[in-house]
Amino acid sequence: MNAFPPLTRPVRLSVDCMGGDHGPSVTLPACKAFLAQHPGAELLLVGLEADLREAQVWQRCRIVPASEVVTMDDPVEVALRKKRDSSMRVAIQQVKAGDGEPAADACVSAGNTGALMAVARYLLKTLDGIDRPAIASLLPNHSGGYTKVLDLGANVDCSAEHLLQFAVMGSALVSALDGTERPTVGLLNIGEEAIKGNDVIKRAGDLLREADARQVLNFHGNVEGNDIFKGTTDLVVCDGFVGNVALKTAEGVAGLMAGILVQEFTGSLYGKLAALVAMPVLRRFKRRLDHRRYNGAALLGLRGLVFKSHGSADAFAFEQALNRAYDAARNRLLDRVHDRIIAAMPAMSGAQPEFASAGGLPPSRQAA
Amino acid sequence: MNAFPPLTRPVRLSVDCMGGDHGPSVTLPACKAFLAQHPGAELLLVGLEADLREAQVWQRCRIVPASEVVTMDDPVEVALRKKRDSSMRVAIQQVKAGDGEPAADACVSAGNTGALMAVARYLLKTLDGIDRPAIASLLPNHSGGYTKVLDLGANVDCSAEHLLQFAVMGSALVSALDGTERPTVGLLNIGEEAIKGNDVIKRAGDLLREADARQVLNFHGNVEGNDIFKGTTDLVVCDGFVGNVALKTAEGVAGLMAGILVQEFTGSLYGKLAALVAMPVLRRFKRRLDHRRYNGAALLGLRGLVFKSHGSADAFAFEQALNRAYDAARNRLLDRVHDRIIAAMPAMSGAQPEFASAGGLPPSRQAA
Repeated sequence: MNAFPPLTRPVRLSVDCMGGDHGPSVTLPACKAFLAQHPGAELLLVGLEADLREAQVWQRCRIVPASEVVTMDDPVEVALRKKRDSSMRVAIQQVKAGDGEPAADACVSAGNTGALMAVARYLLKTLDGIDRPAIASLLPNHSGGYTKVLDLGANVDCSAEHLLQFAVMGSALVSALDGTERPTVGLLNIGEEAIKGNDVIKRAGDLLREADARQVLNFHGNVEGNDIFKGTTDLVVCDGFVGNVALKTAEGVAGLMAGILVQEFTGSLYGKLAALVAMPVLRRFKRRLDHRRYNGAALLGLRGLVFKSHGSADAFAFEQALNRAYDAARNRLLDRVHDRIIAAMPAMSGAQPEFASAGGLPPSRQAA
Repeated sequence: MNAFPPLTRPVRLSVDCMGGDHGPSVTLPACKAFLAQHPGAELLLVGLEADLREAQVWQRCRIVPASEVVTMDDPVEVALRKKRDSSMRVAIQQVKAGDGEPAADACVSAGNTGALMAVARYLLKTLDGIDRPAIASLLPNHSGGYTKVLDLGANVDCSAEHLLQFAVMGSALVSALDGTERPTVGLLNIGEEAIKGNDVIKRAGDLLREADARQVLNFHGNVEGNDIFKGTTDLVVCDGFVGNVALKTAEGVAGLMAGILVQEFTGSLYGKLAALVAMPVLRRFKRRLDHRRYNGAALLGLRGLVFKSHGSADAFAFEQALNRAYDAARNRLLDRVHDRIIAAMPAMSGAQPEFASAGGLPPSRQAA
């Protein structure tokens, strides 16, 4: 695996300022804070001009007008076929390489997931060697870091080959975000033994072991749901149906536990007094599990970098999604994915044999 | 749906005293506590006679000797073909109807899940109309109750028909344990809309809606992972692969949060002082989430009641599994499952048409 030194030129993000539950009232303050934190960053702010006026005077910023907005309830077809000048679409368009370099290195939107995935896929197309894009996100683990997990819901019927592709793309994501060049990969299953699971999973295990033998991947083996939070591996790979259920289950348990904790600390006079004393401790507990800190999922497998923020994100959470996109772009995630796909090609059945020689990667913005 | 008045005669459980990580050192104290709590209960204690001597003098108890023990690591084949006089097998045998009534109403074991399921299935056979037994367990929810979930790992490739069968059997379980005659059923999916999910799930949704229209089930619709812990429905139905991942994920999140809470309350002098003050509150919090309280999974779909305790259960946890088996037997879970299967028969494609008239249910111990 070649090393990919970080970009030395300014990283430029395009931001769908209208997306999410709150639109510019959240995205603009987040952009402002982000710019202050990253003197080497530039933003393209995409949206209704009237709503973005306050940003006209900002440094390292340009407003890119769009006349329409994809709402959180809009069906995919509306986003794809009707609203052709939506802020979501225009923002994604900025990372598309046309005849020359794309206008931005990565795009960030808090718009609805289905629409974002569909428009991004339509505009950017998938990378050669990748059948389906996947959604990769971060979940906190015992070691104080974040386990990367994909797919979290883009694909509900994955083959073993898809899971291998996810492992390849996810490994590149871990490398770009954490600097780990040989991240460990776990295959989400219902037991550690290779004989466990359904046929797709067992075959995926075979493919991953083969890729490991070829030094394309660092395959740890099967992992179980609890391993995500133990941090047993850097990356966990699963079908989008299973990944989405796991994610929502995790949210449910966290909500239940937090709710009971609040009830116990507010349900009695003694509880309230204890809460006063314990407040600094409880605040630290809350901060460590604050889901806003790991906001920002990557749509992997496209010929351009797109990051998805939670729709309900506040300014702090949206800023984290911007940070994630910035780190990924700066550490050349797209080049890394491309490089890993080429290395994995012999292990990836079903991939086009002519790809490796064809170059494959669209022109990206000048690397240094 | 007929009413099933509780049994008025003594309920008798057969207990695999050798199963689990700890064997008789856990199961015997649990049995003793259980007998003290249930004056109307009787136990058959199955195991190595030398290890069960202390129970010889107990009231409402009989020791049933077995000369072998299935270990937690024994492969299924060993439990099934080699150890034919294991405590697990003999305990299950007690709930099998031979020419006459079975010796016990329900069996409880903390032995390894794969072996238990295989031996139970081999000895007891599945009920007519049921293709595959499933594992149903309880998970705590916001409303202070327990959401029942199945399948949790017995079946890794379920068809839509299997999911319908799970819904029918699980509804009977909820009725027997909670007294709810028309429990609500949720289908675990990645979104509430009927168009979400993979093909199996969509077809399962169709079958469940049809069963609801026939008043065989009370189908709520699709639910997501977080709904398990909200308690949106009484029952959640899913493929065993997905259910197992959800269960392990839930354990992982709970472990992570508890670990961080402990770290914060022990990592500094202030934290330790705050913990002293907050201890009564934290204890209540811990008690409410104590997983030992909901120990005891049901193996549903067999011609006999079998309950599975966690292998690592302590005496308190094992006692809860005994309680669960007792409640199920007393409230005639087997009759309820049978009755619901007959009612659901027209909605259950792939089921044997001759079943409803054939009677189907094996002789059980006299009902009243």
